[in-house]
Amino acid sequence: MAHRVVIVGGGFGGLYAAKALRRAAVEITLLDRRNFHLFQPLLYQVATGELSPADVAFPLRAVLSKQRNASVLLSEVTDIDPQRRVVIRKDGAEVPYDSLVVATGAKNHYFGSDHWAEFAPGLKSLEDATRIRHRILYAFEAAEKESDPEKRRAWLTFIVVGAGPTGVELAGALGEIANDTLREDFRSIRPEEAQILLLDGSPRVLSPFHPELSAKAENSLIRLGVRSVLNVKVVGVDRYGVRVKSATGEQYIPARTVLWAAGVTAAEFTRVLASRLGVEPDRGGRIPVDAYCNVPGHPEVFVIGDAALSKDADGKPLPGVAPTAMQQGSYVAASISKRLRGDNVEVFRYRDKGNLAVIGRARAVAQFSETMRFSGLVAWLLWLFVHLMYLVTFQNRLIVFIRWGFNYTTYNRGARLITGDIDPGDSLEHLKTNEQHVEVRST
Amino acid sequence: MAHRVVIVGGGFGGLYAAKALRRAAVEITLLDRRNFHLFQPLLYQVATGELSPADVAFPLRAVLSKQRNASVLLSEVTDIDPQRRVVIRKDGAEVPYDSLVVATGAKNHYFGSDHWAEFAPGLKSLEDATRIRHRILYAFEAAEKESDPEKRRAWLTFIVVGAGPTGVELAGALGEIANDTLREDFRSIRPEEAQILLLDGSPRVLSPFHPELSAKAENSLIRLGVRSVLNVKVVGVDRYGVRVKSATGEQYIPARTVLWAAGVTAAEFTRVLASRLGVEPDRGGRIPVDAYCNVPGHPEVFVIGDAALSKDADGKPLPGVAPTAMQQGSYVAASISKRLRGDNVEVFRYRDKGNLAVIGRARAVAQFSETMRFSGLVAWLLWLFVHLMYLVTFQNRLIVFIRWGFNYTTYNRGARLITGDIDPGDSLEHLKTNEQHVEVRST
Repeated sequence: MAHRVVIVGGGFGGLYAAKALRRAAVEITLLDRRNFHLFQPLLYQVATGELSPADVAFPLRAVLSKQRNASVLLSEVTDIDPQRRVVIRKDGAEVPYDSLVVATGAKNHYFGSDHWAEFAPGLKSLEDATRIRHRILYAFEAAEKESDPEKRRAWLTFIVVGAGPTGVELAGALGEIANDTLREDFRSIRPEEAQILLLDGSPRVLSPFHPELSAKAENSLIRLGVRSVLNVKVVGVDRYGVRVKSATGEQYIPARTVLWAAGVTAAEFTRVLASRLGVEPDRGGRIPVDAYCNVPGHPEVFVIGDAALSKDADGKPLPGVAPTAMQQGSYVAASISKRLRGDNVEVFRYRDKGNLAVIGRARAVAQFSETMRFSGLVAWLLWLFVHLMYLVTFQNRLIVFIRWGFNYTTYNRGARLITGDIDPGDSLEHLKTNEQHVEVRST
Repeated sequence: MAHRVVIVGGGFGGLYAAKALRRAAVEITLLDRRNFHLFQPLLYQVATGELSPADVAFPLRAVLSKQRNASVLLSEVTDIDPQRRVVIRKDGAEVPYDSLVVATGAKNHYFGSDHWAEFAPGLKSLEDATRIRHRILYAFEAAEKESDPEKRRAWLTFIVVGAGPTGVELAGALGEIANDTLREDFRSIRPEEAQILLLDGSPRVLSPFHPELSAKAENSLIRLGVRSVLNVKVVGVDRYGVRVKSATGEQYIPARTVLWAAGVTAAEFTRVLASRLGVEPDRGGRIPVDAYCNVPGHPEVFVIGDAALSKDADGKPLPGVAPTAMQQGSYVAASISKRLRGDNVEVFRYRDKGNLAVIGRARAVAQFSETMRFSGLVAWLLWLFVHLMYLVTFQNRLIVFIRWGFNYTTYNRGARLITGDIDPGDSLEHLKTNEQHVEVRST
């Protein structure tokens, strides 16, 4: 019987592992809760109405349909028995493995305040993205109908928590929506008066980037009407706004739309895996792995991508980005093949592909090394090229390219639909003043 | 002050009325529960994963943004006071009118068995379409995991109730999904073994068409693996199947996916309107209107599209199709302008544009008059042309065209995503045998 490779998770790590095994004499089972691979780097464009869900998601079966040694199961994996070498599906069925690749990714993290999730959605799934799109667009609709100036102001205030690449991209897109896309659409409000605040605990935006690029990014954001509020800590989030703490005191900022881009933690399954394998996950729930992407003592279990805490040769943790997961996916696939052939396996070496963040129309920052840095149009073209190249299927690449072309030339966002079951009328009825939420200026 | 025209509903009727008033000296307010116009004739393609929601929906604000005499309000209208000439929004606010155009459309109708809706979703909204897509795709996933052959058979049985154009289009698309799109995607099941049943109470499919076209449509359906079950009445629908009654008795057909294309009724608001205006709606909730699209005795109130029961010169009710609504929308707009100028208003004349129904790839039937009939590729090209022409914005037209081109040449369906909060694992756990639903063969 062929060597059975079970891959849990169809993100960048799992999918690249499956594809890299296409010529190996193995039998691959890829399990995912979802029937599609999600191209997360473009998810913020779904949230901001520029792309449709289907533009950034690819049916896993379609991606692997020609690969006869791979089968896909739509199933959540909830447990594992490492002695018997089986993973256990939510419906109770067991799937046996000879090699296991855990690539279960990350989810939003609210630092112990999970109840904030209701008021400040994060951006990890397609549902998150359509929910955020709903919130953003509905806020302008509610403001158009609102006659009380204070309430209207709260509807037109947008807070993005976290000024990493995702936060910067969301805030930049919000700036464009307010200033360009919706410019002529309303009769009572002026969308360009929207207040967009980008909050972060560090002293600058895009803190993993070179300070010069942070400054350039902040300039571009200012031009889009985004104000960054730095060195602050979020201490409370509710339906009506955000409470922040700074060196000078606490303040409540009324805002009906709060988006969370501040942190992620490994998906639930890694905690189960850690306890079954007797290892200690880090604070983010990630499983520490060795230089072979293996759980120490378990050469048949690989953990990759955001589920793993892996370190480079200097002991520095690898960044939680798509290239890390892709490289690890291809690496473990090669490892499995080599071991089956009895060949030597080398340790995993991370190649840093640099960092990219886009800030609205034709502006981005890119950093490939300490000295190779770009900003403005050049960085944006690089971003465009890299993302189009990585889009898995040709059809989507072309459609995304056309959409971008249109959006770029017309300032339009074709996908700005408010869907879902929230009835606008109902939501408005809940718009009552909440007495305990009076604004507290820095005290 | 300008003459105030209030339009309730942004479907074909309401939108065409608003656009036809673009040069009139009026102040238009278009109210809709949704922020987009839905291109309903292509909705079945969203349900079957061929197009994305944003391909068939257009933000109303964007469509009307350049029209300075029109404003859009995202609001549901729940009541009306015809004496004071105001409509009342769900949030209690009043919107005064001088002329009122009611274009609130239709919703799914289950002939008194509203609880069937849960098991047999209809196809009227974007949410309906994504829900149906979810059901169809998930059924194949569940079958792939199911080892019991009888349960697997139920997952692979798809029932479409109603063999009008929508039912025929859905069944044809299901046939293509099973036979072409998913052909190589599964390892345990053979999607082409899916059983697709098209149920109708009449003795032939597409009964409003010429019998010759009905026969051609049925032939095309058979080639796609769709079996039509005619002269039957649905007497029960639940999670596990459908109970049908025919001349020979009753029968329970196990099927985990049941789609409803059997009937529509006017949206709720028309019943309120009827009682406030003291008129009697028909059984389908439609408001009877006179030859000017007016509610008798109320020259300032127009009802158009699926909300209205309008008759042609021979007293035959007009069909509930998009061209009726479009023509009536343009007509009432012209009427309002003429009355404001003191000009004579002529009665509404319906121009029958014919009937079109598409049955899978490159096959359709078209009927323009008793003698002008087409089928096969010619009819399909006509269908293609008509639908592309009517797509409101150029961007969507091009993107839809490209998607169709790809789908046509590759048999692919890029938008086959299962989204939403239903957890596959959970659903499977409910897949227990339901004792009361043993099959009852014709008795």
